[in-house]
Amino acid sequence: MQKIINPQDLAFQLFELHEVEQALGYPRYAEHNRETLQAALDLALKVAAEEFATHARLVDEEEPRFEDGRVVMRPEVRQALDVLRDTGLMAAGQDFERGGMQLPAAVAQMCVGLLKGANVGTQGYAGLTIAAANLIMAQGNEYQQKKYAEPMMAGRFFGTMCLTEPHAGSSLGDLRTRAEPREDGSYRLFGNKIFISAGDHELSDNIIHMVLARLPDAPPGVKGISLFIVPKILVNDDGSLGARNDVALAGLIHKMGYRGTTSTMLNFGEQDGAVGYLVGEANHGLAAMFHMMNEARIGVGLGSVMLGYTGYLHALEYARERKQGRPVGEKDPLTPQVPLIRHADIRRMLLTQKAYVEGGLALCLQGAMLVDEKKHAASEDQRQLAAGLLDLLTPVIKSWPSQFCLEANSLAIQVHGGYGYTREYPVEQFYRDNRLNPIHEGTHGIQGVDLLGRKVSLAGGRFYRELLDRIAATIGEARGIDRLTASADHLERAVRALAEATTTLNAEKAAGKVEQALANASLYLEAFGHTVVGWLWLRQAIKANAGLQGNGGQTAEFYEGKVKACEYFARYELPKVVTLAGLLNAVDTTALGMTDAEF
Amino acid sequence: MQKIINPQDLAFQLFELHEVEQALGYPRYAEHNRETLQAALDLALKVAAEEFATHARLVDEEEPRFEDGRVVMRPEVRQALDVLRDTGLMAAGQDFERGGMQLPAAVAQMCVGLLKGANVGTQGYAGLTIAAANLIMAQGNEYQQKKYAEPMMAGRFFGTMCLTEPHAGSSLGDLRTRAEPREDGSYRLFGNKIFISAGDHELSDNIIHMVLARLPDAPPGVKGISLFIVPKILVNDDGSLGARNDVALAGLIHKMGYRGTTSTMLNFGEQDGAVGYLVGEANHGLAAMFHMMNEARIGVGLGSVMLGYTGYLHALEYARERKQGRPVGEKDPLTPQVPLIRHADIRRMLLTQKAYVEGGLALCLQGAMLVDEKKHAASEDQRQLAAGLLDLLTPVIKSWPSQFCLEANSLAIQVHGGYGYTREYPVEQFYRDNRLNPIHEGTHGIQGVDLLGRKVSLAGGRFYRELLDRIAATIGEARGIDRLTASADHLERAVRALAEATTTLNAEKAAGKVEQALANASLYLEAFGHTVVGWLWLRQAIKANAGLQGNGGQTAEFYEGKVKACEYFARYELPKVVTLAGLLNAVDTTALGMTDAEF
Repeated sequence: MQKIINPQDLAFQLFELHEVEQALGYPRYAEHNRETLQAALDLALKVAAEEFATHARLVDEEEPRFEDGRVVMRPEVRQALDVLRDTGLMAAGQDFERGGMQLPAAVAQMCVGLLKGANVGTQGYAGLTIAAANLIMAQGNEYQQKKYAEPMMAGRFFGTMCLTEPHAGSSLGDLRTRAEPREDGSYRLFGNKIFISAGDHELSDNIIHMVLARLPDAPPGVKGISLFIVPKILVNDDGSLGARNDVALAGLIHKMGYRGTTSTMLNFGEQDGAVGYLVGEANHGLAAMFHMMNEARIGVGLGSVMLGYTGYLHALEYARERKQGRPVGEKDPLTPQVPLIRHADIRRMLLTQKAYVEGGLALCLQGAMLVDEKKHAASEDQRQLAAGLLDLLTPVIKSWPSQFCLEANSLAIQVHGGYGYTREYPVEQFYRDNRLNPIHEGTHGIQGVDLLGRKVSLAGGRFYRELLDRIAATIGEARGIDRLTASADHLERAVRALAEATTTLNAEKAAGKVEQALANASLYLEAFGHTVVGWLWLRQAIKANAGLQGNGGQTAEFYEGKVKACEYFARYELPKVVTLAGLLNAVDTTALGMTDAEF
Repeated sequence: MQKIINPQDLAFQLFELHEVEQALGYPRYAEHNRETLQAALDLALKVAAEEFATHARLVDEEEPRFEDGRVVMRPEVRQALDVLRDTGLMAAGQDFERGGMQLPAAVAQMCVGLLKGANVGTQGYAGLTIAAANLIMAQGNEYQQKKYAEPMMAGRFFGTMCLTEPHAGSSLGDLRTRAEPREDGSYRLFGNKIFISAGDHELSDNIIHMVLARLPDAPPGVKGISLFIVPKILVNDDGSLGARNDVALAGLIHKMGYRGTTSTMLNFGEQDGAVGYLVGEANHGLAAMFHMMNEARIGVGLGSVMLGYTGYLHALEYARERKQGRPVGEKDPLTPQVPLIRHADIRRMLLTQKAYVEGGLALCLQGAMLVDEKKHAASEDQRQLAAGLLDLLTPVIKSWPSQFCLEANSLAIQVHGGYGYTREYPVEQFYRDNRLNPIHEGTHGIQGVDLLGRKVSLAGGRFYRELLDRIAATIGEARGIDRLTASADHLERAVRALAEATTTLNAEKAAGKVEQALANASLYLEAFGHTVVGWLWLRQAIKANAGLQGNGGQTAEFYEGKVKACEYFARYELPKVVTLAGLLNAVDTTALGMTDAEF
């Protein structure tokens, strides 16, 4: 049986919690109905289970190798990606006219998420291709869209994102790759890129690199970065392949996990320069890239969630099957051993995982719903509000799962005991794979500063206040349900403490004490994330309560489990927000005050 | 430069905080002085840096292989262990007359700890040998001591501990390996063992397995377990090697980390039975094994600490050298990038690591001091008190570092950014290696139940109250130092909340609600551990404060860093105890109430 997702939870989250069918009211999705959405999800789950999960361990054990200048990898990767392309899943979110399924964002993201949970390494090649194609669709001209993005959406060409350089990681403004203009309107690029996922392979006819570089007259810093298309093999006007471009694979990077997706060092312009084509306006490359960042970061968050989720389901099955020890108070050693799940501490670890991964899933899908609302809502005001809320929540969606669903992976190992630490069981790989997620697409520290330093204050704090209003409305609704009153109280205490800390830290910023205000931005991010997930748990409990009264499509046990998971989150997790907020409210600068020599 | 330990911290912890020179007052250590202790530590650090750290990555990349029934491994392992034996470090804690250095427990443990921080995989072979030899010295007869333990202490024979079986991990009482008596007084063993570290190799002339098994007439459960010596190769009376015993290597287990120490499946008695010799009394094997458990568990805790510690020092060096980004408020992109350590969030992550690893070290050394006090203190009452305190603290010493120094390893990766996730840097290996420690030698869950279900109530709670009294005394002392008053207040709040929860949970137990009382024992363990480490931080700050006034051997910056790390622990960590204790005090049973179908 697949251990990628609980199908009841998938249906509950999409159709009952987030009411994704409402998105079918947008003209873009008019041709869909619940059945077509479900069919896409079923297909994705089938491909995930049958084509992706089956070789997840293989690509970890035999990671891509660098041989004679080529990247060599397991043949199963190509087979799985061929199926992905042939089923149309590669372009699940694209327009019908581009060969896509034109699915609502939450469903399209979920299709990708299922593949990530099954095999994050192999999915990486497809994920980067779609991200690069989307970037061209959003920022490129029609010629570029047709020449590069269309073959990418069809899966003939694959893509990459080339941002990082050896000396410029989080500090992108320091990148040095330079792009020299040529008379024909093209450019020649020279520079070295590192940590380029899927940077070279033989899975597709061509690889289209989306490269950040500087023009000769560019201003310094982030305002002087431009975006270029740099194909591995030049493409003729008729779409056929031409000469090899001046892009060289300098080596592979070997990672702790996520090994199936090769990570490369690429040299551009070792000889006479790599041919590149400017995308969008000169010196606006970073903005172009960041235009896609919300969705990319939802993708990272959802990937974290799904790694946590599959670990949870593996731990749950193991806890049901593995017999070990006896219940508390059973003194007779001749009685049979009981399944692990009978032990209180095992149940606590399973419930913690459930609360983290199902809470994380609700969070990521909330983000995806906002993506559609931002694009398709009826009024400009609704669209702006959705865009602002999405901006606000993006650092949380990117970070919270990468912290707490990684913790879920650790608990999945712990449930397995010694077996969980061995490579004969899959949970250790999920833990290694997931450890990348707090790092790439902006580290935790970067996200914290983004949230506290910028996002909560956007539009004079309008979106932040809107979020608090929505949380307050949920609290009010929960107060009308006896069983949820205590959980509502926990959430209210958390949100009050968070709001108080926010006010204090904003005042510090306003007083010019920016460094002090941001010193614990990562902890602010954590407190903020827990509050938002607590809100989503309360919303889940409200829907589950309705379900228990017959207003829903899942079993009574499922709904009861949802209410208890909400109670767990309220009792065990939300008090941590109050503690963290207390620290934040004190504008503590202990770490800031450490000098180098004092470490 | 070695990045295993900060030498100032080592000197501070041993000689200023724990005043290990006081142990020199025990007759056993009369021949030592500070210089001889320091010489042993210097030697261990030199061997650790020059012989162990140098191949730590190699044994991870090329883990031991199973070829033609043999275990094949890198030659550097044997070379390092030869040096360990030749320098006498293998027997650092043994009596002079046994070829040992007869070092106080804290110093002997520290010598081992330095090797673990350098290369936990290679150290494993020596560590298991000494543990097995100690077991024979404590429980075996004189003949067994001479025949088996002496060659082990000399490093000619290596040893193992054979407890776990495929169906009996945490539930040791369910083990099935049987031992049939023979007329000559020996036994023949039949059974399968799993997860046997160092279970086969060619590093030594022989391997002495310490095996738990059942006699034919043994009562069921833990009361029917006996301990046996089962040599890989039978030993003649003159000490020469005889025939191969009936012990077969059935295969190797492949782990996420700790790969240098091979983990094996062993079959005893595939043919006519493995020859074994009873150690101590029949049916008292588990008690015999547990007799050594306190020290073994300090070893696990210290191993966790040292993996966290070396990760911290690697992160610190990286943060000082790697330049990335600019200070908050610096808008000019033409200014040079600054070292990572200039960023507040990096300093926060470094300070967190410092607080965890130095706090963990203080905790483990506290345990080692009690080992000596328990054995050598002048009065029976002092010895009993030390033994009881050690019993109480053992689950904390085993567990706290394996949780928080693992978290330190994760932060060390985070400080490195993308580089930290690659196998080109060592921090990812520390993280993988350290993930074993919450599992082996009794999982977190087992330790929690041991602490709350048994240890706090030992002798009517005498040792628990003694610990609280000692903490109160430290709080009182710190109140006399202006700068430490706030930290003392934090600790007092934590200890009060913990004490209240303890009283509540004890009352539940007394009322027969044992399962409810123990449902969150793992969280109790965490709260208890944080309180104890908070106490040790306050004690470090008191000593550091004295150092700042000229009463100590370290630099002013070092002492200042200690005080700030105490402040960090008090402000950031101790409030978590209050939150956890609130939950515990409510005797929450959310997880206990989950039924199987609700997950």
